[in-house]
Amino acid sequence: MSYPPIPFLSQSGPAEQAVWIQALSQAMPQERIVSFSALSEQERNACTVAIVANPDPAQVHALPSLQWVHSVWAGVERLVASLGDSPLHIVRLVDPQLAANMAEAVLAWTLYLHRYMPEYARQQQQRIWAELPYVMPQHRTIGILGMGELGTEAARRLRAADFRVCGWSRRPRSIEGVESFAGDDGLREMLAQTDILVCLLPLTPQTRHLLDAERLGWLPRGARLINFARGGIIDDTALHAALDAGHLTHAVLDVFEVEPPPVDGWHWAHPGVTVLPHCSGPTSRETASAIVARHVQAFRERGELPAGVDRAAGY
Amino acid sequence: MSYPPIPFLSQSGPAEQAVWIQALSQAMPQERIVSFSALSEQERNACTVAIVANPDPAQVHALPSLQWVHSVWAGVERLVASLGDSPLHIVRLVDPQLAANMAEAVLAWTLYLHRYMPEYARQQQQRIWAELPYVMPQHRTIGILGMGELGTEAARRLRAADFRVCGWSRRPRSIEGVESFAGDDGLREMLAQTDILVCLLPLTPQTRHLLDAERLGWLPRGARLINFARGGIIDDTALHAALDAGHLTHAVLDVFEVEPPPVDGWHWAHPGVTVLPHCSGPTSRETASAIVARHVQAFRERGELPAGVDRAAGY
Repeated sequence: MSYPPIPFLSQSGPAEQAVWIQALSQAMPQERIVSFSALSEQERNACTVAIVANPDPAQVHALPSLQWVHSVWAGVERLVASLGDSPLHIVRLVDPQLAANMAEAVLAWTLYLHRYMPEYARQQQQRIWAELPYVMPQHRTIGILGMGELGTEAARRLRAADFRVCGWSRRPRSIEGVESFAGDDGLREMLAQTDILVCLLPLTPQTRHLLDAERLGWLPRGARLINFARGGIIDDTALHAALDAGHLTHAVLDVFEVEPPPVDGWHWAHPGVTVLPHCSGPTSRETASAIVARHVQAFRERGELPAGVDRAAGY
Repeated sequence: MSYPPIPFLSQSGPAEQAVWIQALSQAMPQERIVSFSALSEQERNACTVAIVANPDPAQVHALPSLQWVHSVWAGVERLVASLGDSPLHIVRLVDPQLAANMAEAVLAWTLYLHRYMPEYARQQQQRIWAELPYVMPQHRTIGILGMGELGTEAARRLRAADFRVCGWSRRPRSIEGVESFAGDDGLREMLAQTDILVCLLPLTPQTRHLLDAERLGWLPRGARLINFARGGIIDDTALHAALDAGHLTHAVLDVFEVEPPPVDGWHWAHPGVTVLPHCSGPTSRETASAIVARHVQAFRERGELPAGVDRAAGY
């Protein structure tokens, strides 16, 4: 039996699209993966599944038989917003390798702050050779915002490194060795005892500007921040003010409301900011393609759809 | 029964000496811990044990009944050298907490290099926002020089972070999940496959300038280096040349032949060097004092001496 082709829909450049189409084709050689422009009109009307990476919504809407789309991104808030009320079933990438890569980044940049790497870099510039007082990881509290698959894996890695770990999520969770908080009162309670705050939340209407001036103020003076989720979760102006006031002493920012951040933006030259190019959770095309291929096969053979995004929650 | 006091011998300043004497006194309240200058002549002739931290050798030689000294440092090469042929029994600090602190530093600065933190810092200065290709830790080989208690604990932490780990030591070792090398042929074989070299060797006549121009040349082009042991293990001129030639792309140096490194030295401003102030293995006065107290108690009660430094091997 021959199926209609599977379009790969993306607003990225042709080179990036080509390497994705190649990786996906290798993972499912029995399927035909093509760009939108390669579809005939008959194929456009026939195809039932698409693979997407930040697609043009007009292309999604131009496929009338589409039953579901599989994103190769973990974050799908733009896709959900762009599809409005469409009942389309959206599957986002849940890649254990992505969780491992992201948890490694959380551990790496937590250790970066824990072992004073920004401070030692500044001392080196000034040719100052002075040891800063060591704090045992048991006495360092890491607060994680968002305890989904990424937050849980990050917590596990931080616990293995002997840090004290707290986690906050919409619904209370029970994770061994991690003190769990939920709700607005829980957020306040957790932030008040957090030395290093790690943001791994999805961006939804509820989390947009969750970290505003008031909530950043709930952190103890001298706290530090890592944002590996989405720029929109933090009020950028409030963050700038908290850093300038010395309430926060450092922020590691991998995500921004506008990416790349404008060249004349304040982040680049601020001594309390480490700017990263959205590199904390690198997607592996190989492992992502293998996951999509398994889901497509289950759909072809048994009509099964993987769990989809909760449109109300936004993730 | 009352014992003669235990002198704390150190060339550090009076404030540093005072906090050590306080910590040691708290750990063994039944003993009298004093500075050298507080000893009467009778006490100088009577005391059988001293606690030392980079002591003035003349003070050690001025204690005729001394049977042993306990260093609160792990590295005792200067002490061994300064005592010449003296048969004095030297005990160095073997602190499991030190091994944990050092292993944390090895993991932290390995991740620093693995996740391209120096490169991203340079990009930030130039306002460049570009992701560098991610390499999985399984494809990154960390070579450890020195597989004593520090190297073994570091290897365990790196393995838990999914790195490929090799270890080189004087005598072959068998450590689960770590490929073991020994001897000069073994060194060549290990260096040839090492992406990040971590030096944790003791400084001895055999290890002085072990990493010379030839052996640095055994590393693959683009390799990186972490020295958390002693500056004298690396030929500083050869290291400078290897970095300038791009054979090595980065060195994290926590130790130097002269400490602090001279203000007009080449290390400070070299783009391929991270200068650290001998902070990788912070000694905890609390845990170190507790270990010394246990050893002193066994000596008082049963005349037992802890295992001493092998004077021929130098550690």
